[in-house]
Amino acid sequence: MLDAEITIVVALFPQLTQLDFTGPAQIFARMSNTRVVLAARTLDPVVTDCGWAIVPTATFDTAPPSDVLFVPGGAGAFDAMLDSDVLRFIRRQADAASFVTSVCTGSFVLGAAGLLKGKRATSHWASLHMLSELGAIPTSERVVRDGAVITGAGVSSGIDFALSLVENLRGREAAERIQLTIEYDPEPPFATGSPKNAPPDWITAGRRDAEATRLDPVRQAAAALSEK
Amino acid sequence: MLDAEITIVVALFPQLTQLDFTGPAQIFARMSNTRVVLAARTLDPVVTDCGWAIVPTATFDTAPPSDVLFVPGGAGAFDAMLDSDVLRFIRRQADAASFVTSVCTGSFVLGAAGLLKGKRATSHWASLHMLSELGAIPTSERVVRDGAVITGAGVSSGIDFALSLVENLRGREAAERIQLTIEYDPEPPFATGSPKNAPPDWITAGRRDAEATRLDPVRQAAAALSEK
Repeated sequence: MLDAEITIVVALFPQLTQLDFTGPAQIFARMSNTRVVLAARTLDPVVTDCGWAIVPTATFDTAPPSDVLFVPGGAGAFDAMLDSDVLRFIRRQADAASFVTSVCTGSFVLGAAGLLKGKRATSHWASLHMLSELGAIPTSERVVRDGAVITGAGVSSGIDFALSLVENLRGREAAERIQLTIEYDPEPPFATGSPKNAPPDWITAGRRDAEATRLDPVRQAAAALSEK
Repeated sequence: MLDAEITIVVALFPQLTQLDFTGPAQIFARMSNTRVVLAARTLDPVVTDCGWAIVPTATFDTAPPSDVLFVPGGAGAFDAMLDSDVLRFIRRQADAASFVTSVCTGSFVLGAAGLLKGKRATSHWASLHMLSELGAIPTSERVVRDGAVITGAGVSSGIDFALSLVENLRGREAAERIQLTIEYDPEPPFATGSPKNAPPDWITAGRRDAEATRLDPVRQAAAALSEK
């Protein structure tokens, strides 16, 4: 069972925050007997938030059914959340998957697809509180599991998320060995990586800015969801 | 001075370990007034160690002079290290740069270009000891600065490296703010991220495997360097 072939399907969309995806992707690539598929609307390179592009390996139509569906976040997640092609793809993949997962604001895409109703889930600290609009129970932890749904917090938490996923799929030693190969023994230079420790006015401003651009699309997605 | 435009040039080559690059790239992209250029031999997508590809934004010939030269590592670094086009590009860029930097085994490419002679530098734990072949002083720390040369240890250390680079270039508050936006408050699930804490037989095997494939090219690069 621990050695069965696993297919991980990643949903790519324009303006994703690339580290949401690339952190977990480094870990997925070091799992035994695992195929990672990068699915996007077309096979054209997908431009990330950093300005440069990643080449998909499948389209939403050609991607195989996944054992693990993974959705990264970023500003583009709030467009993806309103895109019926993306949501149809996410729902179809989620039906087959053993785990439905996200990092950062990727959880809003899961939420818009109706996959977080009544579920504990996390997201980037600046947007997390808005996740309740989509029926989720916002949970301020780095990695949150509620049944088959595993969500990671902001950006760099994808590394912690992916290692815990490997433990679930392949056992503890496999995860420990991958942690060594990526030399994941972090030494954050400052204490400001968490909203608990950063200056309160930075947090207030971050949440205000996130609401200014994101609350409208989130409510639009919530309205569309309640009509279904 | 802290606001002057900065150009960061990244050297891309096939089979780079993508997180060596994508971790720092997420942080570079959030620096003010900063242009990030991904330079490769051609503009064709560069296939990473994870099987999928990143699209360069310039060639070795068209990339502008850098303020910061950055070289990621990976299995491909040991081919890049023996590639005269890559080394010529690295040397030309290093001439103009204020900082010459690497993560993981990217330090071997810097070493092969003759940029680490007598310098303290780090690399991935499994290969670090071989860096002395290229005249460097192997230094087992997560981020090592020796004058204008800053090197990071294995893979995930690129995040720590890049935040410390931002502090050098833009001041402490800028780095602290970026650390918050990427929610870098790591919670490694296991203690095995460092060779200090992993089982000794994993470390012995990792170093042996690295030597088996890498010591020959490293010595070849060292020989080529001593003939210059």
